[in-house]
Amino acid sequence: MRVNYARMLQERLDGVHGLAPPRLDALVRRFPEVHGELLARRTEGEYGFYHLPEASDTVAAIRRFSEGLGQAHEDVLVLGIGGSALGTRALLDAIRGRDWNQRSDEAREYFPRVTVLDNVDPAAIGAALQRLDPRRTLVNVISKSGNTAETLAQYLVVRAWLREALGDGASRHLVFTTDPESGALREMATTAGVASLEVPPAIGGRFSVLSPVGLLPLALAGIEIDELLGGAGEAVRRAESDDLRENPAALYAALMFAADTQLGARIQVLMPYCDGLREFTAWYCQLWAESLGKAHDRRGQLIHAGPTPLGAVGATDQHSLVQLFMEGPFDKVVAFVSVDDLGPDLPIPSDPSLPEAAAFLGGHTLGELLHTEYEATSAALAKAGRMNLTVRIRDLSARSLGELVMFFQIAVGYAGVWYGVNPFDQPGVEFGKRLTYAALGRPGYQGETATPRPEPVREGV
Amino acid sequence: MRVNYARMLQERLDGVHGLAPPRLDALVRRFPEVHGELLARRTEGEYGFYHLPEASDTVAAIRRFSEGLGQAHEDVLVLGIGGSALGTRALLDAIRGRDWNQRSDEAREYFPRVTVLDNVDPAAIGAALQRLDPRRTLVNVISKSGNTAETLAQYLVVRAWLREALGDGASRHLVFTTDPESGALREMATTAGVASLEVPPAIGGRFSVLSPVGLLPLALAGIEIDELLGGAGEAVRRAESDDLRENPAALYAALMFAADTQLGARIQVLMPYCDGLREFTAWYCQLWAESLGKAHDRRGQLIHAGPTPLGAVGATDQHSLVQLFMEGPFDKVVAFVSVDDLGPDLPIPSDPSLPEAAAFLGGHTLGELLHTEYEATSAALAKAGRMNLTVRIRDLSARSLGELVMFFQIAVGYAGVWYGVNPFDQPGVEFGKRLTYAALGRPGYQGETATPRPEPVREGV
Repeated sequence: MRVNYARMLQERLDGVHGLAPPRLDALVRRFPEVHGELLARRTEGEYGFYHLPEASDTVAAIRRFSEGLGQAHEDVLVLGIGGSALGTRALLDAIRGRDWNQRSDEAREYFPRVTVLDNVDPAAIGAALQRLDPRRTLVNVISKSGNTAETLAQYLVVRAWLREALGDGASRHLVFTTDPESGALREMATTAGVASLEVPPAIGGRFSVLSPVGLLPLALAGIEIDELLGGAGEAVRRAESDDLRENPAALYAALMFAADTQLGARIQVLMPYCDGLREFTAWYCQLWAESLGKAHDRRGQLIHAGPTPLGAVGATDQHSLVQLFMEGPFDKVVAFVSVDDLGPDLPIPSDPSLPEAAAFLGGHTLGELLHTEYEATSAALAKAGRMNLTVRIRDLSARSLGELVMFFQIAVGYAGVWYGVNPFDQPGVEFGKRLTYAALGRPGYQGETATPRPEPVREGV
Repeated sequence: MRVNYARMLQERLDGVHGLAPPRLDALVRRFPEVHGELLARRTEGEYGFYHLPEASDTVAAIRRFSEGLGQAHEDVLVLGIGGSALGTRALLDAIRGRDWNQRSDEAREYFPRVTVLDNVDPAAIGAALQRLDPRRTLVNVISKSGNTAETLAQYLVVRAWLREALGDGASRHLVFTTDPESGALREMATTAGVASLEVPPAIGGRFSVLSPVGLLPLALAGIEIDELLGGAGEAVRRAESDDLRENPAALYAALMFAADTQLGARIQVLMPYCDGLREFTAWYCQLWAESLGKAHDRRGQLIHAGPTPLGAVGATDQHSLVQLFMEGPFDKVVAFVSVDDLGPDLPIPSDPSLPEAAAFLGGHTLGELLHTEYEATSAALAKAGRMNLTVRIRDLSARSLGELVMFFQIAVGYAGVWYGVNPFDQPGVEFGKRLTYAALGRPGYQGETATPRPEPVREGV
């Protein structure tokens, strides 16, 4: 993995926009202090995700589980939301391909399909339960806290569906992934005798894909989870230096922080040139938005900070968002992800009898066209004074994806220090939850109301 | 359809943020002029998409085609990119459900699966061609100009795949949707005797889903395209008034314009509370970004304008992006889409023996939970001083979706007038295309280079 940042620099853009050398130098000089703060917080146990690559006993336990019970099923149904769903979907799409569930049993080598339900939309859940056969489906219910309302609601519906088909055998089709001790899901696992895996308490939801949260469903789909963790370990090793120019994740964070707070680039686009990484951008957006979007800094000062992440995919979105990136306000950085080896390439057949607009493509390959478009878009953005950088990865193997996941997790950890915020909480969503509980009559929340209570909505057309 | 905008107004938020009454009054006063300019441009033929609902002959032609050749196939493969792909996928997911391709033949009532390939990623295309049976697949190649490099490259690969299986019969599995006269695709349709449909010249790619571009694949999937156009006609009828308060699409545009240019809300989030509308947000983002993100206004002044659209889905993204929306910078408007009737609801079974965090959900329904979460999130955002509005639609029928599509197309048309830009061009992406052609050796583009030519990228880690 390599981060190329030349096109973040003023001298490589139009000479007006971008990072001037003194700003970069200042980031480099200040970095040892940032790195030191992160190390101190790691020592205090705050950055638990750094330890995920060391969990070889977890890997062994998940492998035993997935080779036994798991392989008896044609479908895995994951019930979760946010960090309990996004990472699994991202890595499944990247490593197995976006059409995994549509492939034949042979093409899947008899590994199960994986359906991730991350909403409480009755139409989507109803369609999934109509499609799946409860006798051949393993249901993995995932909630870090064990108390997530959406996931518990899904679970109650799915439990009834399992019981209707399987009676008392339903619990053998269930596995819970949750906190080792607290929460409703843990309590139900114990009382109902449901198999369960533990989310280490030091791992927050959006940092949990390399914990049992993601590892179990990914292992069930036949993904080499030790390779995932091996790649993640590589990212950890490459993040030890207090020289900013030798620490890729820290450099990524510093450049993005400077772009936002010094150069007005509040919007940070992650744009892989690769279909399989489309869902990965959604995982990244959660990680970036929920970790850094904060009203208060660590000292309690009101700051209302946080860049807005935006996912895009090349070449596709050259025909959608790139017009805005090229010509709109100077309020964005584009972080490309370029994949060296996308797998077997497809040649574009030659046919000189075709019209010229088609004929010139003959003799090239699809992969070559895709890569050329990435290079052209990066160069065109630079010429227009638009900051962009590239994270280059070797391939879409489990190892490369494990490294990429951990790279971004470490980057957001550093960004937390630069912004001065706690990247591990999410206080802004609590009030909405309490309003929901109140509306549904949950005991203890009757008093919750949006004060001043909004009047009934009149303004409409 | 109804637009509720109370929570855009200062008095309904925290009294600090939001639109103060004089600003709204000013928009209302200026609107007749904006409306007049749009009418004049319509008369000159610029806003061709307004006429799409009147195309009953197109509907008849597409129906004849889809009932004949179309029904002989198990799969429809759409090759297109940007406006040739996004709308079809958006409406297919909304009306048929996101898992349409995974359902059994019976559950699909024997209508074909639809695969939309909108990239030149060899892995994705290779997987699709491995999965599909060429003997039972109809390939719809779509390019408004007929010269889109990505689509032509896909076509050449897919043509070879068809020919290998079908020999001279390959052309009977093809239908082109393109300009009536110009472009490589039209020329190839004529010389190779391939069936074709016409994209009216006055319809730009991102405004084309209600033209044959979207109507053919949607009709093949059994969607009532006359209902789509009927709904679209309703949106046109509701956009005739020059009283801003009586013209929902115009009001949406005016509020978004004011939020961006007067109140610093450069980011405009479209957030349906509905799984089926996830792809719809990608369609919306193209429409909004490519139409309004412009370097120059109509008079040639350099403005670098355009809000940044962002897609989100509730309740899912309450566990992802909403933390940032609640607590981050005051640089966003959230436009919710709320669906009154999501189809058959699912009750959440009661079980008082469960832990309280799960038990309180019993007796409610999933749809009720989803709707309650939308209301809670909207209220919580308002309390935090965050502008938001709601577009409320009745259901996910073809009629409702046709109305919603046309509503947003008309809105962006009005927004073009407010911003003073041409919403129908995309000059910013031309340079990247020329660089790609040069790199691939296309005749006539040898001289294209990003000047000053960027040196080889050195800055990396």
